[in-house]
Amino acid sequence: MIKSAFYLAPDAKLPQQVEIDQISNLLGTGKGLLWVDIEDTTSEDAQFLMDVFRFHPLAVADCVSKNIHPPKIDEFEDHLFIIVHGINYHVESDVVETTELGLFIGKNYVVTSHVIPMRSVTSTIERLQVDGRPMRRGADMLAHDIIDVLVDNIMPTIDELDQKCTDIESEVVEHPRKETLSSIMQLKRSILALNRVMSPQRELVNSLARGDYPLISKRAHIYYRNIYDHLARIEMLTQGLRDLADSVLATHLSSVSNRMNEVMKVLSIVAAIFLPLTLLAGIYGMNFANMPELQWRYGYFVVWGVMALVALSLIAFFRKRKWL
Amino acid sequence: MIKSAFYLAPDAKLPQQVEIDQISNLLGTGKGLLWVDIEDTTSEDAQFLMDVFRFHPLAVADCVSKNIHPPKIDEFEDHLFIIVHGINYHVESDVVETTELGLFIGKNYVVTSHVIPMRSVTSTIERLQVDGRPMRRGADMLAHDIIDVLVDNIMPTIDELDQKCTDIESEVVEHPRKETLSSIMQLKRSILALNRVMSPQRELVNSLARGDYPLISKRAHIYYRNIYDHLARIEMLTQGLRDLADSVLATHLSSVSNRMNEVMKVLSIVAAIFLPLTLLAGIYGMNFANMPELQWRYGYFVVWGVMALVALSLIAFFRKRKWL
Amino acid sequence: MIKSAFYLAPDAKLPQQVEIDQISNLLGTGKGLLWVDIEDTTSEDAQFLMDVFRFHPLAVADCVSKNIHPPKIDEFEDHLFIIVHGINYHVESDVVETTELGLFIGKNYVVTSHVIPMRSVTSTIERLQVDGRPMRRGADMLAHDIIDVLVDNIMPTIDELDQKCTDIESEVVEHPRKETLSSIMQLKRSILALNRVMSPQRELVNSLARGDYPLISKRAHIYYRNIYDHLARIEMLTQGLRDLADSVLATHLSSVSNRMNEVMKVLSIVAAIFLPLTLLAGIYGMNFANMPELQWRYGYFVVWGVMALVALSLIAFFRKRKWL
Amino acid sequence: MIKSAFYLAPDAKLPQQVEIDQISNLLGTGKGLLWVDIEDTTSEDAQFLMDVFRFHPLAVADCVSKNIHPPKIDEFEDHLFIIVHGINYHVESDVVETTELGLFIGKNYVVTSHVIPMRSVTSTIERLQVDGRPMRRGADMLAHDIIDVLVDNIMPTIDELDQKCTDIESEVVEHPRKETLSSIMQLKRSILALNRVMSPQRELVNSLARGDYPLISKRAHIYYRNIYDHLARIEMLTQGLRDLADSVLATHLSSVSNRMNEVMKVLSIVAAIFLPLTLLAGIYGMNFANMPELQWRYGYFVVWGVMALVALSLIAFFRKRKWL
Amino acid sequence: MIKSAFYLAPDAKLPQQVEIDQISNLLGTGKGLLWVDIEDTTSEDAQFLMDVFRFHPLAVADCVSKNIHPPKIDEFEDHLFIIVHGINYHVESDVVETTELGLFIGKNYVVTSHVIPMRSVTSTIERLQVDGRPMRRGADMLAHDIIDVLVDNIMPTIDELDQKCTDIESEVVEHPRKETLSSIMQLKRSILALNRVMSPQRELVNSLARGDYPLISKRAHIYYRNIYDHLARIEMLTQGLRDLADSVLATHLSSVSNRMNEVMKVLSIVAAIFLPLTLLAGIYGMNFANMPELQWRYGYFVVWGVMALVALSLIAFFRKRKWL
Repeated sequence: MIKSAFYLAPDAKLPQQVEIDQISNLLGTGKGLLWVDIEDTTSEDAQFLMDVFRFHPLAVADCVSKNIHPPKIDEFEDHLFIIVHGINYHVESDVVETTELGLFIGKNYVVTSHVIPMRSVTSTIERLQVDGRPMRRGADMLAHDIIDVLVDNIMPTIDELDQKCTDIESEVVEHPRKETLSSIMQLKRSILALNRVMSPQRELVNSLARGDYPLISKRAHIYYRNIYDHLARIEMLTQGLRDLADSVLATHLSSVSNRMNEVMKVLSIVAAIFLPLTLLAGIYGMNFANMPELQWRYGYFVVWGVMALVALSLIAFFRKRKWL
Repeated sequence: MIKSAFYLAPDAKLPQQVEIDQISNLLGTGKGLLWVDIEDTTSEDAQFLMDVFRFHPLAVADCVSKNIHPPKIDEFEDHLFIIVHGINYHVESDVVETTELGLFIGKNYVVTSHVIPMRSVTSTIERLQVDGRPMRRGADMLAHDIIDVLVDNIMPTIDELDQKCTDIESEVVEHPRKETLSSIMQLKRSILALNRVMSPQRELVNSLARGDYPLISKRAHIYYRNIYDHLARIEMLTQGLRDLADSVLATHLSSVSNRMNEVMKVLSIVAAIFLPLTLLAGIYGMNFANMPELQWRYGYFVVWGVMALVALSLIAFFRKRKWL
Repeated sequence: MIKSAFYLAPDAKLPQQVEIDQISNLLGTGKGLLWVDIEDTTSEDAQFLMDVFRFHPLAVADCVSKNIHPPKIDEFEDHLFIIVHGINYHVESDVVETTELGLFIGKNYVVTSHVIPMRSVTSTIERLQVDGRPMRRGADMLAHDIIDVLVDNIMPTIDELDQKCTDIESEVVEHPRKETLSSIMQLKRSILALNRVMSPQRELVNSLARGDYPLISKRAHIYYRNIYDHLARIEMLTQGLRDLADSVLATHLSSVSNRMNEVMKVLSIVAAIFLPLTLLAGIYGMNFANMPELQWRYGYFVVWGVMALVALSLIAFFRKRKWL
Repeated sequence: MIKSAFYLAPDAKLPQQVEIDQISNLLGTGKGLLWVDIEDTTSEDAQFLMDVFRFHPLAVADCVSKNIHPPKIDEFEDHLFIIVHGINYHVESDVVETTELGLFIGKNYVVTSHVIPMRSVTSTIERLQVDGRPMRRGADMLAHDIIDVLVDNIMPTIDELDQKCTDIESEVVEHPRKETLSSIMQLKRSILALNRVMSPQRELVNSLARGDYPLISKRAHIYYRNIYDHLARIEMLTQGLRDLADSVLATHLSSVSNRMNEVMKVLSIVAAIFLPLTLLAGIYGMNFANMPELQWRYGYFVVWGVMALVALSLIAFFRKRKWL
Repeated sequence: MIKSAFYLAPDAKLPQQVEIDQISNLLGTGKGLLWVDIEDTTSEDAQFLMDVFRFHPLAVADCVSKNIHPPKIDEFEDHLFIIVHGINYHVESDVVETTELGLFIGKNYVVTSHVIPMRSVTSTIERLQVDGRPMRRGADMLAHDIIDVLVDNIMPTIDELDQKCTDIESEVVEHPRKETLSSIMQLKRSILALNRVMSPQRELVNSLARGDYPLISKRAHIYYRNIYDHLARIEMLTQGLRDLADSVLATHLSSVSNRMNEVMKVLSIVAAIFLPLTLLAGIYGMNFANMPELQWRYGYFVVWGVMALVALSLIAFFRKRKWL
């Protein structure tokens, strides 16, 4: 449903909030700048958009549907329809969720549509009510401001993923747990998902910055180019995260092998030391009638000595082989 | 053989079913819209298509052949020949099967050809008989409707593959069976096959949406662009599935190593505890004449105590090393 | 040396075989269509081609050389020189061998050159002698027919590789042998070699179909496009084979790990059951003067009972852990 | 803050250092060449740049921000804004740090901006004070000189990474330590980071060399092309480093397996030799009333002989199997 | 320094060797063809090239520097500067070394510059002195001849690498040594290095063959295209080598696992046979007062029989499981 509608009259300093039934009239004047924000678009909203703004049914259908659509720009005769994606990152569950924002940009209006409340819209409204500047520079710059905040909101997610990566890395080195592997895999999937969401947007924003669309005025190009640079930086950071996650995974897998090596060494050393000694004890436990050593006075103690000697030489041998 | 033929007279509301021998006449009028649907095209049908519609022998041959052809658009003087692929997913055997649909789009006719019954054709016919709307918007929009349903029918397959992936993942973590690996590999192959079928179609639909072909009218472009968006979304989802399957495979392989580690630990612990005790018992089983301990009153019980002590210290040692 | 030469006079139905010394005259008339087929081109043949047909020395040198050249099209003033590759697959040794066919296409002649007898040439000659149709449609269509058969001959190889893949897969699952790994690697290499031979040809045939060369008439384009489609299909199938081979390899490597796991389990279970029992026997084999149990009437049988109990509990324990 | 400002008057030989308040006047003359170098740009500097040079606020904001921005060229009406990256490599911690240099190139001025002192700027200033040549060839060549030194400074880092790679390689082969794996992973990440920083710059410098920007004069193209060649060489060397690091990693992982093999062999040999002998001793330790061998005169010594024989044959067997 | 200089006067059959001080005059005539070959270019040579030929300082600097530069073509007003790479392969150390050749191609001169003696230059000079043909066809064809020999000299390296690959493969299968892994890694690195050197040259030669440079005459295009084909073939062969090396590596790693499996089997079989028998012996070594079997007349022999029975059944069991 329509959450808020603002209108900035020509030469006015601050936009004023307007009622839904005024929208059609204000639009008809062809002057000023109108911003309508719709949350959780219903089929009534859809009808309204088609009747008042004359938007194409397919574009409106994209707003109503709760599916995620790939980011895109559709150019119509007198307006653009843009879909851009933001990120909602749930730290606890380590899930990267894509949020979708639909923007209609006309000569004197901007319509935003989203399923859940979006921080980029809310914060632009707040700045608007204080200053009015975001709307004073025209529809293309208002759209820029909203998309800019959306993109900036991605940075904290990257920082959190980076933090998580480093945490898991030290966990892997110090005391890996059973769940470590699955958190690495989950992290890697999050990074890949983030990358998949971000990289198509770069090309999209580039086409806005390049001047492919007459509705985006020339002085706005450099501002869209700035968003492009942010996206390029995010992609660079995501690549670095991916390398980090890969190296954490490789370290984990290799540390499993190393621990196995440790276990095997303990086993081998135990067997190598005790099997010979047990044989020795077994030999003097035989019941042959004629076993001269058994009658020696210190035979028993000699055997103890021999056993100690054998054990110590084996320990020395394993020391030299760096097994101990 | 020709399964059904519909004709929408100019200004008519509902299309009417027509006989095969009427087709040639109706086509000659150059008015209205004709839709001929052929299933399991025989060489007689091929002859009919070449005689009545004057289709190129190679295009008709593609319809007759039961092989899978890569998706393509062939442009002829007055019609397009398009091959698009759908998906038949057999859940039990986890096999992704490609189904092929051939479409001839002329100014006032559409001819569809397929080997087995296709849901996208059947459901368009059903809607047609109720409403007639799919045919009232022209040949290009009728073709769009059929392709659109074909592409939409892919989504359930992706959901099922996703479900299967998640099922296998929890199976891997909880109680992997011998067959788990082969179902992961089968799943991965299905996802790759799906990807291989879908990605060339994106470019194909894009060329229809971009206005490369005059037979696709300008107002149909945005509708084809919509199919393109669906295909882009399917590709995005398939990529995510691929990452998921890769991570399930890595988890599985690593869990095999982990179980091996467990087995080795049990072995090492058993050996490390019992070999020393056996040695002790062996020593006091020796038959030396002079073994003072044997005559001690509580010698036997002291040995029991020493054994308990050794066993407990070893257990404590392994506890500390987190092997137990 | 020149194996055969055919000449189709204008308006004739069937081509007639001609002698080598007639070739120069027939070519001079500029009418009809001449096809010269050369096998194992010698330097005399090369001289003949340069003298009579005025081919470029470099193109002729490619025909004489027994090396494999990458597929290519060289355009000269009045003819094209095309190199295309076919496949000879030796099932027993699982080796994919590339065969090379050089084609000179002029306005009224086609010259084919190859090192060993080629099925595509032989079968075209056979059809020619029965029907004459391949030559009646001009030089570009004659070249098309030869290349078409060449490409079609690749399909059986793919089927054989597929069969081999499936065979090895079931072998891996049921009873892997020592040689299994090397046959998987050999198979994978064959598939990669096949892919490497086929993929550059696609672009080559595409340029023929696109109308880059005036010698290929407009009505032949759709026929070359048909070959392109076959090559695309072959590439799609080869990709599938590659995935299959990769998954067979992964299954094999993992089954090696699994067997190791089995071996280790047997070892651990044997050690875990017999080491404690041996200790027990060892204890009652000690020679202490004061060991009350030894004098018990049923002591020996009690020990048997304890041993059975320990063994059974351990077996139950391993059953519960699913090791047995 | 502004660290230094140089002005080369027309026809002068050596540039002279100028005060901040002269800058505006000198710029107004439109003659000579002015170079302003700013370190750790503050918001006052930003204001100065916007007031005096009329730079775009977004470009100036990039200079103030301490974040790393992707390398880029922004073209404005009468100047270019370029961001290029250098490398600071910390050998001890093996971390590749990116340093950023912002360059504004106008007709008769160059403004450089960086966060920390940069060797490329310092060394250009030194050469300038001695010779003046870098400024005598115009703004585009001054910018070239600075970027050239920046790129040349990357080579020592590559040499150091290469040295480190070789060191680790010999360590892996001779005596791998626990930390070896993590240094390999760290090294690989450094190489990837270096690659990620360098490769986008190649395209950037190429566009300067290709003549896309009128501010870069034709005779400077070949000089920028020279930087491009250096970057291409750096990329080639980085690729080689990557292969080297991958091969070191593979060698390390495989050497872990090999050591495990050694451990297992020792265990198997020990068990295979001592278990049979222990059985033999156990047999003659049995207490059966009727055991003829026990009464043999040399029975005990025969057993010793048999034991030696068994042990020696087993050792011979393992020798033959190359286990020893 | 200048090693040799040849001049072919117009209409002359054989070139004559000329002195350094004649070069300037001969060049001034603008007629005939001059070839100057410089080895280990000094700064004097550089001055000479800049004074007499008026080459660009940067191009000359590339000749003086002993670094490897990426292959490139720089176009100047009246000449081209080309850098191409050859290969020096040291079989014993298995190192692929890149050699660099700089070529200046003018209308009536070619200048070659290289650090060490190059076979391609030497052999062209030899042919020149016998025949003169390489110079009679103009500067572009002379450059072609030199580059052609350079590229042809790469083939033996590929054959040697292939031979080495096959040798290592049979070594891996039959009797792998400790050094096998490092020779595989070294081989793989050589192949990658070779690939990295060759692939950028293909594009370079293609631009010469495509007619991008007016100095390369139209009739030389097909000859450069021929070099391009050789490079394409080399790339194809290198790809095959890479697959082969990868499969050798995989076989090696898997054979390590297999040998581990063998070792573990031996251990398990030994333990499984001897531990039960040792227990049996231990039981009858107990000292219970009441052990009826001990008094049986043939008890001892019965135990021997039981032991043999147990051992044989276990051996049969392992035979059935294919462990033996």
